[in-house]
Amino acid sequence: MGKIMINGTIVTAADTYQADLLIEDGKIASIGKGLNRETHEIVDASGYYVFPGGIDPHTHLDMPFGGTVTADNFETGTRAAAFGGTTTIIDFCLTDKGKPLSDSIRTWHDKSRGQAAIDYSFHLMIGEMNAEVLAELPEVIREEGITSFKVFMAYKNVFQADDGTLFQTLLAARKLGALVMVHAENGDVIDYLIREALQAGNTEPIYHALTRPPVLEGEATGRAAKLTGLAQSQLYVVHVTCAEAVKQIAEARASGVEVWGETCPQYLVLDRSALEGPDFEGAKYVWSPPLREAEHQEALWNALRCGELQTLGSDHCSFNFKGQKDLGRHNFSLIPNGGPTIEDRFSILYSEGVAKGRIGLNQFVDIVSTRSAKLFGLFPRKGTIAVGSDADLVLFDPVVERTLSAETHHMNVDYNPFEGLKVTGEPVSVLVRGEFVIRDKVFVGNSGTGQYLRRVGYSGG
Amino acid sequence: MGKIMINGTIVTAADTYQADLLIEDGKIASIGKGLNRETHEIVDASGYYVFPGGIDPHTHLDMPFGGTVTADNFETGTRAAAFGGTTTIIDFCLTDKGKPLSDSIRTWHDKSRGQAAIDYSFHLMIGEMNAEVLAELPEVIREEGITSFKVFMAYKNVFQADDGTLFQTLLAARKLGALVMVHAENGDVIDYLIREALQAGNTEPIYHALTRPPVLEGEATGRAAKLTGLAQSQLYVVHVTCAEAVKQIAEARASGVEVWGETCPQYLVLDRSALEGPDFEGAKYVWSPPLREAEHQEALWNALRCGELQTLGSDHCSFNFKGQKDLGRHNFSLIPNGGPTIEDRFSILYSEGVAKGRIGLNQFVDIVSTRSAKLFGLFPRKGTIAVGSDADLVLFDPVVERTLSAETHHMNVDYNPFEGLKVTGEPVSVLVRGEFVIRDKVFVGNSGTGQYLRRVGYSGG
Amino acid sequence: MGKIMINGTIVTAADTYQADLLIEDGKIASIGKGLNRETHEIVDASGYYVFPGGIDPHTHLDMPFGGTVTADNFETGTRAAAFGGTTTIIDFCLTDKGKPLSDSIRTWHDKSRGQAAIDYSFHLMIGEMNAEVLAELPEVIREEGITSFKVFMAYKNVFQADDGTLFQTLLAARKLGALVMVHAENGDVIDYLIREALQAGNTEPIYHALTRPPVLEGEATGRAAKLTGLAQSQLYVVHVTCAEAVKQIAEARASGVEVWGETCPQYLVLDRSALEGPDFEGAKYVWSPPLREAEHQEALWNALRCGELQTLGSDHCSFNFKGQKDLGRHNFSLIPNGGPTIEDRFSILYSEGVAKGRIGLNQFVDIVSTRSAKLFGLFPRKGTIAVGSDADLVLFDPVVERTLSAETHHMNVDYNPFEGLKVTGEPVSVLVRGEFVIRDKVFVGNSGTGQYLRRVGYSGG
Amino acid sequence: MGKIMINGTIVTAADTYQADLLIEDGKIASIGKGLNRETHEIVDASGYYVFPGGIDPHTHLDMPFGGTVTADNFETGTRAAAFGGTTTIIDFCLTDKGKPLSDSIRTWHDKSRGQAAIDYSFHLMIGEMNAEVLAELPEVIREEGITSFKVFMAYKNVFQADDGTLFQTLLAARKLGALVMVHAENGDVIDYLIREALQAGNTEPIYHALTRPPVLEGEATGRAAKLTGLAQSQLYVVHVTCAEAVKQIAEARASGVEVWGETCPQYLVLDRSALEGPDFEGAKYVWSPPLREAEHQEALWNALRCGELQTLGSDHCSFNFKGQKDLGRHNFSLIPNGGPTIEDRFSILYSEGVAKGRIGLNQFVDIVSTRSAKLFGLFPRKGTIAVGSDADLVLFDPVVERTLSAETHHMNVDYNPFEGLKVTGEPVSVLVRGEFVIRDKVFVGNSGTGQYLRRVGYSGG
Repeated sequence: MGKIMINGTIVTAADTYQADLLIEDGKIASIGKGLNRETHEIVDASGYYVFPGGIDPHTHLDMPFGGTVTADNFETGTRAAAFGGTTTIIDFCLTDKGKPLSDSIRTWHDKSRGQAAIDYSFHLMIGEMNAEVLAELPEVIREEGITSFKVFMAYKNVFQADDGTLFQTLLAARKLGALVMVHAENGDVIDYLIREALQAGNTEPIYHALTRPPVLEGEATGRAAKLTGLAQSQLYVVHVTCAEAVKQIAEARASGVEVWGETCPQYLVLDRSALEGPDFEGAKYVWSPPLREAEHQEALWNALRCGELQTLGSDHCSFNFKGQKDLGRHNFSLIPNGGPTIEDRFSILYSEGVAKGRIGLNQFVDIVSTRSAKLFGLFPRKGTIAVGSDADLVLFDPVVERTLSAETHHMNVDYNPFEGLKVTGEPVSVLVRGEFVIRDKVFVGNSGTGQYLRRVGYSGG
Repeated sequence: MGKIMINGTIVTAADTYQADLLIEDGKIASIGKGLNRETHEIVDASGYYVFPGGIDPHTHLDMPFGGTVTADNFETGTRAAAFGGTTTIIDFCLTDKGKPLSDSIRTWHDKSRGQAAIDYSFHLMIGEMNAEVLAELPEVIREEGITSFKVFMAYKNVFQADDGTLFQTLLAARKLGALVMVHAENGDVIDYLIREALQAGNTEPIYHALTRPPVLEGEATGRAAKLTGLAQSQLYVVHVTCAEAVKQIAEARASGVEVWGETCPQYLVLDRSALEGPDFEGAKYVWSPPLREAEHQEALWNALRCGELQTLGSDHCSFNFKGQKDLGRHNFSLIPNGGPTIEDRFSILYSEGVAKGRIGLNQFVDIVSTRSAKLFGLFPRKGTIAVGSDADLVLFDPVVERTLSAETHHMNVDYNPFEGLKVTGEPVSVLVRGEFVIRDKVFVGNSGTGQYLRRVGYSGG
Repeated sequence: MGKIMINGTIVTAADTYQADLLIEDGKIASIGKGLNRETHEIVDASGYYVFPGGIDPHTHLDMPFGGTVTADNFETGTRAAAFGGTTTIIDFCLTDKGKPLSDSIRTWHDKSRGQAAIDYSFHLMIGEMNAEVLAELPEVIREEGITSFKVFMAYKNVFQADDGTLFQTLLAARKLGALVMVHAENGDVIDYLIREALQAGNTEPIYHALTRPPVLEGEATGRAAKLTGLAQSQLYVVHVTCAEAVKQIAEARASGVEVWGETCPQYLVLDRSALEGPDFEGAKYVWSPPLREAEHQEALWNALRCGELQTLGSDHCSFNFKGQKDLGRHNFSLIPNGGPTIEDRFSILYSEGVAKGRIGLNQFVDIVSTRSAKLFGLFPRKGTIAVGSDADLVLFDPVVERTLSAETHHMNVDYNPFEGLKVTGEPVSVLVRGEFVIRDKVFVGNSGTGQYLRRVGYSGG
Repeated sequence: MGKIMINGTIVTAADTYQADLLIEDGKIASIGKGLNRETHEIVDASGYYVFPGGIDPHTHLDMPFGGTVTADNFETGTRAAAFGGTTTIIDFCLTDKGKPLSDSIRTWHDKSRGQAAIDYSFHLMIGEMNAEVLAELPEVIREEGITSFKVFMAYKNVFQADDGTLFQTLLAARKLGALVMVHAENGDVIDYLIREALQAGNTEPIYHALTRPPVLEGEATGRAAKLTGLAQSQLYVVHVTCAEAVKQIAEARASGVEVWGETCPQYLVLDRSALEGPDFEGAKYVWSPPLREAEHQEALWNALRCGELQTLGSDHCSFNFKGQKDLGRHNFSLIPNGGPTIEDRFSILYSEGVAKGRIGLNQFVDIVSTRSAKLFGLFPRKGTIAVGSDADLVLFDPVVERTLSAETHHMNVDYNPFEGLKVTGEPVSVLVRGEFVIRDKVFVGNSGTGQYLRRVGYSGG
């Protein structure tokens, strides 16, 4: 016996239409009008958009950072993601220079095994490229299905790799069919600016933003894009925040270089002034790259609309305001970077994007789900509503109005950076591989039913 | 009793998957695995891609030009289109300054009524914007479903409108929800260059290209885009041929102006040297804008790949080499402009684009069909394979190799500009609203079964 | 007996140094230390910069416009210019379509003969290019020494020429060694916007600016530059006001096209808000192109500093507020365009440019004098302080502070657009060909001593 | 008794005129017509241009590199410079990380003292910025008059500094009034590419160019320019070779960042194919950055003409083909980088620039002399012909034709990279501070009469 979803409006990256959906064995079996409903459980989607489940290509769960660990682990994080309409995440597996990659991957499996309510996969950080790492990569791809590698151009003396490592990673990715991801900020200069700010007694959260100006993101983005062109490889720039970086990506793409760009909900709706809140409130808004001045928002929306940026990641990396963010009360550089965004990513893009007329409905699906599936080797299993695909579905009420708040969210963290934001639309029910995880806004899933996803190699977006 | 198409690989602008397609009442009724086949005609699509029928947004059939009339009319043109995998065309309805628009539209209906083998619609030329024209437009949209208006920036003293007319058309389009199309070349300067060339005795076909240099297309394209931004309107640039024009479109889009761009197969695979052929052969390759030097091809491909251009039109406008093209044997300016491309547009994009790895398979569908449907108010009735859409389908053999030639083509014209081009892939069978028009490469349709399509207003692409 | 000027600091476009200047026969005879002072009149320039006299490449004196005539004629205009440190002007000779150019030139000679206190030359307007005009141009150059031709892209139905005329003028200029000047605004669209504004009852001066947005200047500038490139000719864009136009000029120059740009003092220090003054005060600030929003000022200064713009013209075209500007009290389109700027051009550039650190001292001389001499065929007779050059000199007090005002200015007009602007520096004495015209801030010249200057052909800048 | 130079055509960065020059006490005393010639030595400059002596802002004399030392020392190098019309050089003083700057400067004084035939000054390399270096800089400026600091972004593990050092140097320069110079190539990636090439057995000279592609120069140039903007400092990019780098400099300048660019004669007239010469001949053409493909030459000329690049340095760094260049016969990375260019810089710019119509005569003087004097704190003592300036003069025959060759050159090296190049024009006599160093093509100077020049701080160009 399967499920048959009726009366919904199905929306994909290309199409919008009304039809019934038959789900069998966790997959889309048929789409049609007047499908035979006998023997199937009927799910009424009247009044709802039926979207493919969101894919969040950028999360950090159960991750150590700056002497603490993120507030959300795979259990709480994936549950909140499900509430928010996301059915697949790709989490970043950190590595340690000098240790085998397989050790780090094992650690990440240990963190996630039996915890996730939705499906998940891993990206792998590359801290240093050398003969050992190079030798291990084919197995990582083959055995673990990890086909995306991240290089940090910032966080000097922590994660930062030099340009030689970035370039070699690009060459390896080209050869092996993988996608290189890059955190693009000039870490050397930021490192200096932070030291100078602290030395001058400038310790408040706003200095986090002031020591990471947009030009340093634009510079590093252009550098990475140029090295990609030289390597004839492919690049995915995570968390693009500013006009300068968009310009570099657009120029590279226009010249034939395969560069993709992701932005995050926080950069679309928040701005730098949030870091100036009283009583250390600014610490809630400490991301790297930082929030920018408000005019960058329009540049990002425009880049999404005309295809210069292609995806929206949450960069979810939550820390409690009390007990974690306040590690940096007297020194902004000690504030754990990141915030809780895994739950609201999907709704914010719908509300601020579709409902406000900035992007189209099909484009919304492409950005929030389909494109990430295609870029990261999950398509067509994930990222669409098509016969044979996993029945990862979101029933979305497009007209309800509500207000985002820590009081109602499901993330394991004591604040919400979008507190008070009124949004239009809400995920009502969410299915993963045909089973309800959220039903009428109630969590009905189980930790541990989420599966680890082996991905296939990069083949364009 | 409907048809059920089995074993095919369905491809849309977003998806690629295997499923059966049930067609009832000319529409897609269901898509699924193991659909009940009883009572339905079985169509075996084994080994084929099943694409939505191609949409050709740019044709000129039965059109008077330069003292002659195009070789293809609606009967021969649409039949050839069908052979080529195209199931909908939008033809340009010329108008005369000073005459009611409705007269011209009536003429175009008279030309096409009972002739077409596939569905069709009309764009409307605007030669001059004034109170009368402005007053008539709402009715044109409401009654005729014509929601796209074309302005010529070239053909001085023939079609050319001034910038004031272009701007007012943009304003009207914004208000009325229509899309303005523009032939972007600087007609004033071209007019001078042609006169100078002829005066200097330079009468051969190559001077057609030399008197219309790329800079004049780039200039006019940028001008039209800037006026669009000022008018906060929307623009579709037909037949983009060169890097200069692409740059202008990309810059406008990046700055938030809603500009779309079309290129044509001839600009992707032919180059200016064709105009230098012996024995007046160059006349076969006289288009406006003209073929460019070969390096522009890569710019156009790259623009399609990264989304700076969105569609492929044929600009089909056929004239026989003997008896028509030779009107200009002693004066290139008398060579009728245009060529036969309606049939090979689809296959060339597949072969040169997908088979050669320049664009993706889903992107191919978007460019050759879906995007035009969305831009020109035909979606979702046309342009996709989704439940409820018209069953306009192409069964495409992706591996067969063949050679384009006038000997085998179906256009009513005595040469083929792509003569000798080897292509991979071929439309084998074509259905319009569920009925075969082409079956196993044989025309089984009827002139006159093609329907006129009223379109809805512009709502983004 | 000559004059010997001692103790001054001589400043040219390249040099700054202290030396004595010996003037004989109206020319610089020697520059040195310890020149023999016997038999010469001693002029003490202690504490002063000694600059070459300013060259104003853009004035309109005794010019009919919109049913009135400019407030300043050659007598009052050149006297005011002299007070302001300008010793040469190039005035625009208007022409009438259909009449011989020589008629118009004769008219301009009649206006100026015996009137000017400083030297002067003419540019010639080209309203239409045809065989007659083309035939007359060589004589204009040879006999009159007029080597610069101006084409208007705006003022539809008045001065405006079409792109064919512009292009042919560029071709003729290339052949004849002349420089084409262009007023770059899209006149067709402006014409429409004005009519619409008036029809909507929007008659106040601010609508003058709102109906001529920067994008229309940017567009026309780019168009003219591209046609120049195609013609392999040379172009001088008058009165550049905005970032959009600067960008077009810079791009053209960077691609090897010979394009030069002029801005005016009003665009450097005033902004669009001036048009919103109460009691029709805005009419005082009606220029075409109009004043822009304040952020454009920095773009212009930056363009001067880095060489994307090369000269400063006054575009002096004065009309009294009472009796002339108020022709447009109920219709902004009837406000005579232009303002009185011939006197303050030099001082504003010094004060806002040099004294505020935006440009260097030698660069100041280049912009205010030398470059115009070089571009317009007056160099080295004019535009520098070098042995053999005309002794056109300004003794400039660089530290005095004063306030610009109609109460103290010498232009024949009842207001000053820079009223109240505090400036640093003042021309104290001014010599033309070795004779004082201004001595210690008193006019000691004569109307009619100014000579008409025949210029030589264009040879680069 | 002084000298009086008669009948010459004096050319400066602004002016061209005929006059006599009186030289007293090594300085220009007077310029005029009919100067009293009694008691003075008459120098007849009939038929010659009289230029200010060339200033070469970029030389490497007596410099250790790659296990050898340059073929020219201060004696031979400055003598050759004088033959070529150069009267001042600024040589690069290398430093060692960890050692006081003053030690290095002392070394450079030791190398040059008593050796130079023309005047000279030093730039100082900054390998690492730290508290010690920062503390020493004010004294370097005050005591040594060294006001320009060079940072290398390439030569990993040798000279290369990281971005933090570059940024801190920029900040220090801003504060102290100095100019930062940068060798802009991405050293990390180059280092990898070299290793890979050698590992693949690609050891020939052409691989020197192939492992340093233009994109890596463009990238580093843009990076340095962006850091300069952030620091609100000033930058001088040495040896710009390619369109990519020019574009970065132009964009930075247009956005208000104070960036200057130098190119070198080799990049203007030679191209990459030279590295492919037989019998290891390619080694003669090994510079870093390398020679580029020929199309970059036009980009560089155009940049000089429109002011995007401002100076021409020789980057003279000579090594004998036999005994030095051949250190790299089996490994291109061991070929000493650099070539002999100090002598022909001036003549090549004249011949290829002025004589071929690419730049103007005054512009030539600016590029070859004046601008360097202004940027590097030597103006107006050096770099012009004005009263009070040092009488550093070149009598230049503008019409003689000759062929550059190692057989006739005066550099202490066994080949000339411009061998066989026909040039128009030749320095005939050269004076430094009023004394002949070259007289009628014969060296009449003395090693040791060249003076060390203390320079003043940066104040714009």
